[in-house]
Amino acid sequence: MSKHIKSLLLAVSLVSVVPTLQAESNKAEGEYKNWRLISIAHREDNKTMRAILGNHIAIKSAQSGKHKTWQDGTILAKVLWKESRHDKWSQAFVPGEFMRAEAMIKDSKKFAKSGGWGFGHWVNGKLEMHDAETSAKCFGCHVIAKDTDYVFHHAVLY
Amino acid sequence: MSKHIKSLLLAVSLVSVVPTLQAESNKAEGEYKNWRLISIAHREDNKTMRAILGNHIAIKSAQSGKHKTWQDGTILAKVLWKESRHDKWSQAFVPGEFMRAEAMIKDSKKFAKSGGWGFGHWVNGKLEMHDAETSAKCFGCHVIAKDTDYVFHHAVLY
Repeated sequence: MSKHIKSLLLAVSLVSVVPTLQAESNKAEGEYKNWRLISIAHREDNKTMRAILGNHIAIKSAQSGKHKTWQDGTILAKVLWKESRHDKWSQAFVPGEFMRAEAMIKDSKKFAKSGGWGFGHWVNGKLEMHDAETSAKCFGCHVIAKDTDYVFHHAVLY
Repeated sequence: MSKHIKSLLLAVSLVSVVPTLQAESNKAEGEYKNWRLISIAHREDNKTMRAILGNHIAIKSAQSGKHKTWQDGTILAKVLWKESRHDKWSQAFVPGEFMRAEAMIKDSKKFAKSGGWGFGHWVNGKLEMHDAETSAKCFGCHVIAKDTDYVFHHAVLY
């Protein structure tokens, strides 16, 4: 194969790959997509919309009214989108571009130093723990919600 | 038992029952509590927060990318709360008092005259269809979303 044809094929393959990657980056990924809803939020300060979802232990915890001390094994997913105005109803804010999904994992022994919670995020659909510095930042913000077990959101369906 | 004691007991029982009823009226009710998330919204005009949930056919429809023509058997639940500011983060809007939960039911034959959708709401946890007048109002508003099968919200997790 000539160098010229190789370059052409490479250019064609890049053209076809790039739009796919862009489209995928606008989608939420990770097992939380199958989880049930804990609550929602719209933040004016950083112009984001959020859905808080919970794994089955979180939902069991919420249903039993124990969401002020979430059970060990709870994982909460905070899914973030940029705020967007609805194209047919401009006074409605709806999720725009997907930004990221972050996790709080309850293990009162393992994460005893940060209120029983570990902090992570989903990377290409897989849950990875944050490094020590980022985790410290997360906990530093959540500490003001100590009286609700460091979770800002209350379960609204249970 | 004297009439006086009976009255006293009745009064005591009412006192203990009333707060329970009030607490329950602030809760979402209905099978949609077990459904998965389609999208969320915050409306400035009527100061409400909303979560759109879908039954398993809705989710299957969304996952297969068919949410521009939702499959027959789809039920979408719109759960509404009054907007509220977070007590620890005033720039965040979160769900306040629960208002109601409304339904869109897809049956392209049964509801052919209203774009294939029937409209209802949950009453004490049970899904009931709206009367003809209310249904006409619902459809009258949703008609501007005809190009997305009369549904204002796009599935954001699939």
